[in-house]
Amino acid sequence: MTPLPDDPCRLAEQCAAVMLAGDAPARAFGFSLRKVAPGEAELEMTVSESSLNAFGTCHGGALFTLADTALSIACNSYGRQSVAQQCSITFVRPVRLGDHLIARAFERCRTSRTAIYDCTLTNARDGKVIAEFRGHSRTIADAMPTPI
Amino acid sequence: MTPLPDDPCRLAEQCAAVMLAGDAPARAFGFSLRKVAPGEAELEMTVSESSLNAFGTCHGGALFTLADTALSIACNSYGRQSVAQQCSITFVRPVRLGDHLIARAFERCRTSRTAIYDCTLTNARDGKVIAEFRGHSRTIADAMPTPI
Amino acid sequence: MTPLPDDPCRLAEQCAAVMLAGDAPARAFGFSLRKVAPGEAELEMTVSESSLNAFGTCHGGALFTLADTALSIACNSYGRQSVAQQCSITFVRPVRLGDHLIARAFERCRTSRTAIYDCTLTNARDGKVIAEFRGHSRTIADAMPTPI
Amino acid sequence: MTPLPDDPCRLAEQCAAVMLAGDAPARAFGFSLRKVAPGEAELEMTVSESSLNAFGTCHGGALFTLADTALSIACNSYGRQSVAQQCSITFVRPVRLGDHLIARAFERCRTSRTAIYDCTLTNARDGKVIAEFRGHSRTIADAMPTPI
Repeated sequence: MTPLPDDPCRLAEQCAAVMLAGDAPARAFGFSLRKVAPGEAELEMTVSESSLNAFGTCHGGALFTLADTALSIACNSYGRQSVAQQCSITFVRPVRLGDHLIARAFERCRTSRTAIYDCTLTNARDGKVIAEFRGHSRTIADAMPTPI
Repeated sequence: MTPLPDDPCRLAEQCAAVMLAGDAPARAFGFSLRKVAPGEAELEMTVSESSLNAFGTCHGGALFTLADTALSIACNSYGRQSVAQQCSITFVRPVRLGDHLIARAFERCRTSRTAIYDCTLTNARDGKVIAEFRGHSRTIADAMPTPI
Repeated sequence: MTPLPDDPCRLAEQCAAVMLAGDAPARAFGFSLRKVAPGEAELEMTVSESSLNAFGTCHGGALFTLADTALSIACNSYGRQSVAQQCSITFVRPVRLGDHLIARAFERCRTSRTAIYDCTLTNARDGKVIAEFRGHSRTIADAMPTPI
Repeated sequence: MTPLPDDPCRLAEQCAAVMLAGDAPARAFGFSLRKVAPGEAELEMTVSESSLNAFGTCHGGALFTLADTALSIACNSYGRQSVAQQCSITFVRPVRLGDHLIARAFERCRTSRTAIYDCTLTNARDGKVIAEFRGHSRTIADAMPTPI
């Protein structure tokens, strides 16, 4: 286990890399990291067959997973283990095969161990919002678990 | 396209079969149907490597997808196309590799085109609740889309 | 300060009486207690001019306050000080002047210090659901504050 | 009934004035308007005895009512009758007698008849967030009801 970097941005990047590498649904849905900084994260995905429901649109579960993963990377970016406790999502517009989605999560407010993160999902095709997500995180340890 | 059955329970079963067959995330996470009836649905899954996050616990996105799929089967059980609009989930207890989960969705209240569904996720190991989900559906067509 | 009763039902009744007596919005909106037991509470109100908005229907804030007060009485019924942390409400049908409303809150699941309560609001005129509420409570002290 | 003004800002102001004048809970809790513009609204209140619960802190119902009223003014600012359908609130920090609160509601995203509004409540004493609210509105008529 390497010591965590002192620089907040490098720390955020290192935590994100390890978290994404160990995240099986993120790999299956094809998420990739656009940006990470203390308290924020951006992910993107292109909607493939693996995300479709029986109506031929993107499954709400895939959209939630994208937002929840962005939240998870954002709330763990300080190097303290945090988990989502309660999350809600509103599906604003349908998403089709081949659409390219961007999820931007940022910290809205914080107390010592809890925080609220908002994550907006937009369709890169027209820039329109396709879902709005809000999640509540709780810090459960003052360090990241091994092997992060 | 075969005509839909008149019997409400057979209709619910037929809709569920087609919906699950066309649901890629449900197949990837390994959901299977335990029960379906008008306005309700039960799914189960065993947590495999494909659902784990970097902390080695079940990804919140997999749990949401399980609940959201149960909602989707329940709210489409009347043979009218319906979609989830807004959903929230509370993660109550962590879930580990190999845990067997049961999701029970039922209709809580209904107006002409909208309804609220609750879905409780329990761990079959000890019967404890691991997540509570509430979703809002809207009926968008008076029939199911082809080829259902 | 009188010692709290050992009997769980009498304890719940005593906590509820003190809480309602000290609750200014509950008095202003005219809530009254129908029932209290460990982990559950029922309140009622008749919609008066004091609850109306500019459209002449019952203000969503009055409906939320009714549900939130029922939650508060239910989650404090064990004699340990608890507060609501996150609540959501869905307004299902409009409510008019003179309607008589019943709010039933019950505990849905619990861990050591947190719990989820659901509260259904019905219109006594026709028994129809007018709102569904879900709240998350956290126990912040092992006793009730003086003078309860 | 006077014709509605063409100017969007004057229209928003006129709608807000009529809505607040007809809002009984807003008067009882002592809300006043700081600002209104198309799709946004700011209200303020000083916490008086009329808002306290049995623990001597501001009742969650009063905080919800403040946020819900700000949402209502914001979503009716275009001169089309709109109502809240589903709202959630997170209570971040306790609020005491005499605290001065500011509620800022703004439109987060919109489709033809639905919109999402966020409302942040801050304590003017220290500028800290005391609650975060998110509400979903639906436009139910293309004009405001008489006498607005």
